[in-house]
Amino acid sequence: MNVDGKKYRTIWISEDGGSVDIIDQTKFPYAFEIAQLRTKEDAAHAIRVMQVRGAPLIGATAAFGVALAMRADPSDASLHAVCAELLETRPTAINLHWALSKARKALIKVPAEHREEAAFTLANSICDEDIAINMAIGMHGMELIAALAQTKKPGEPVNILTHCNAGWLATVDWGTATAPIYMCHDGGIPVHVWVDETRPRNQGAFLTAWELGHHGVPHTVIVDNAGGHLMQHGMVDIVITGTDRTTASGDVCNKIGTYLKALAAKDNNVPFYVALPSPTIDFSLSDGVREIPIEERSGLEVSQMTGRTAQGTIETVNIVAEGSEVANPAFDVTPARLVTGLITERGVLEANRQSIAQAFPERLKLSA
Amino acid sequence: MNVDGKKYRTIWISEDGGSVDIIDQTKFPYAFEIAQLRTKEDAAHAIRVMQVRGAPLIGATAAFGVALAMRADPSDASLHAVCAELLETRPTAINLHWALSKARKALIKVPAEHREEAAFTLANSICDEDIAINMAIGMHGMELIAALAQTKKPGEPVNILTHCNAGWLATVDWGTATAPIYMCHDGGIPVHVWVDETRPRNQGAFLTAWELGHHGVPHTVIVDNAGGHLMQHGMVDIVITGTDRTTASGDVCNKIGTYLKALAAKDNNVPFYVALPSPTIDFSLSDGVREIPIEERSGLEVSQMTGRTAQGTIETVNIVAEGSEVANPAFDVTPARLVTGLITERGVLEANRQSIAQAFPERLKLSA
Repeated sequence: MNVDGKKYRTIWISEDGGSVDIIDQTKFPYAFEIAQLRTKEDAAHAIRVMQVRGAPLIGATAAFGVALAMRADPSDASLHAVCAELLETRPTAINLHWALSKARKALIKVPAEHREEAAFTLANSICDEDIAINMAIGMHGMELIAALAQTKKPGEPVNILTHCNAGWLATVDWGTATAPIYMCHDGGIPVHVWVDETRPRNQGAFLTAWELGHHGVPHTVIVDNAGGHLMQHGMVDIVITGTDRTTASGDVCNKIGTYLKALAAKDNNVPFYVALPSPTIDFSLSDGVREIPIEERSGLEVSQMTGRTAQGTIETVNIVAEGSEVANPAFDVTPARLVTGLITERGVLEANRQSIAQAFPERLKLSA
Repeated sequence: MNVDGKKYRTIWISEDGGSVDIIDQTKFPYAFEIAQLRTKEDAAHAIRVMQVRGAPLIGATAAFGVALAMRADPSDASLHAVCAELLETRPTAINLHWALSKARKALIKVPAEHREEAAFTLANSICDEDIAINMAIGMHGMELIAALAQTKKPGEPVNILTHCNAGWLATVDWGTATAPIYMCHDGGIPVHVWVDETRPRNQGAFLTAWELGHHGVPHTVIVDNAGGHLMQHGMVDIVITGTDRTTASGDVCNKIGTYLKALAAKDNNVPFYVALPSPTIDFSLSDGVREIPIEERSGLEVSQMTGRTAQGTIETVNIVAEGSEVANPAFDVTPARLVTGLITERGVLEANRQSIAQAFPERLKLSA
């Protein structure tokens, strides 16, 4: 998407043709810096310290990490080593496993002298595939927003509420929940986005606000507490969030607090949509609340806050009374009954077993 | 309540008998400091800069401000002047108006030479009245918690979730939502409190956590996003919040985000109670969502966060992407249909017009 008028992806091959450039996301929201990855170690470091984050972007970075390794040493041993090394960077990320497995299987068949080229080509195709999925999600979601726009006076924006960052910064481009928003904005359908701050890690206020702002999309940051009130007063036309994991029955596991927004949407007849690339559907799961384990993260994410002082320095401050216990569940599950629809690359589905199975019959067979 | 084993109110007559001591709440949660009010100007300053906050405590402080003025100059002119001056400190606080009006009406009838004594006596009685109301709320609420405790294994705590600070720091003592919690704890009924951080002003993490911690009540701070997840997993037995304003029909206007917790409680069959002294009931209102104007506060409360660095200095940091708009509605309205009951000084009422009217027939007549 655009950053102050210039088009960017989150990752791309450097001008030298043999390195990889990324947007260094550890600098957000206070600086926009490009980092260059020259070695597999650079790629591993970028994933580990979250210079890149978001499942699709982590997968793409890993694929480029393999390419950088093949450039240095295209041997079988090198290929196996880099895949093993990169897998350790964030062992629970599903796309990391998928991208590395795909790269290893494809490249082992390629003669060593062609592996560098093949690896870069593969990494690029993983990026393109991500973009294609997100653009398809964007087009399907755009239809929903366009229909709402027709109920408005000319020029009056459709108000969209989103939670966390399912934006282009979490993918190679477009994002998932944000893809319909960018497509509407670029296509002249006026939109305004309510951006949930998304405590404790503030991905809304830090990342979603940053990317919408630099692309030029009108938006307003609110605390996570505010969305219900806005819906009660007709100030939200549609909610669109992302998801980390979706069950075969349409339950949605996403950043903590998503469930509360879904409840408020239901209570106020506001449509609640979840945008997802189909790989996040886990056909082995039926009951999200019971079956999906919820990561309990460090309490320091709650009790400490990092930001920039008026003097321009970055400081971390403690914001919880001393001695108090802190709990930090990172995700919650929104039951399918609260989800109006799932915006996938194959269209907008009802959040139920039948609708999902019909759209992805080949996935269903795989898991059977 | 106790602060590390020593009993305190939030306001009391100093040892010298002619000044007033308060807990300086601008120092929370990093320091516990007593400030002395010697003049009406000190009292006005304390209210204005929020050394004292919370409707009942503001009322009590104003009454003591009148007493300090009467000590300096007990004339009629002085009495009228101090009431006018203090009313300006926070013009929208209902208890401020009520306490000053009560003081002026009572003291104008008292001969000047007795006004100082009468004014201090009146201020003390306003404090005692607040405590009596809160203790009554505490005893009624304790019955609800005690009933839940009987469903637990011996020693297993009742898990109570609360939002914002309706604690003893907002009153003279006991608090409203916290009164049942303190009474249970002191009475040997084991309780554990989930403390919502309460963005944007963090009254939960700053004040509720502080006061529970220093009284010795087990508690855990969570982000506002987490409560729904905890309820889905049976980790909350009851929700108790305060209220700023309650309609005759039982709609509850409280700190932004309360409505989301009420929705989650309903969805998970968790009882949702609101503790309130009856003066917060506004018999002129029927439909809270439509009729109660919601204060829109400065966006700086959202975009800036103040806390203590590891070096011990207090710093304010910016935590929203630069250039983004921010909205900050301060309260929301929880419709009566989501409220299991209202814990008042006259007992636990159903949140409906009939139940409220029956408990407070004299208030209903006044407003008719």
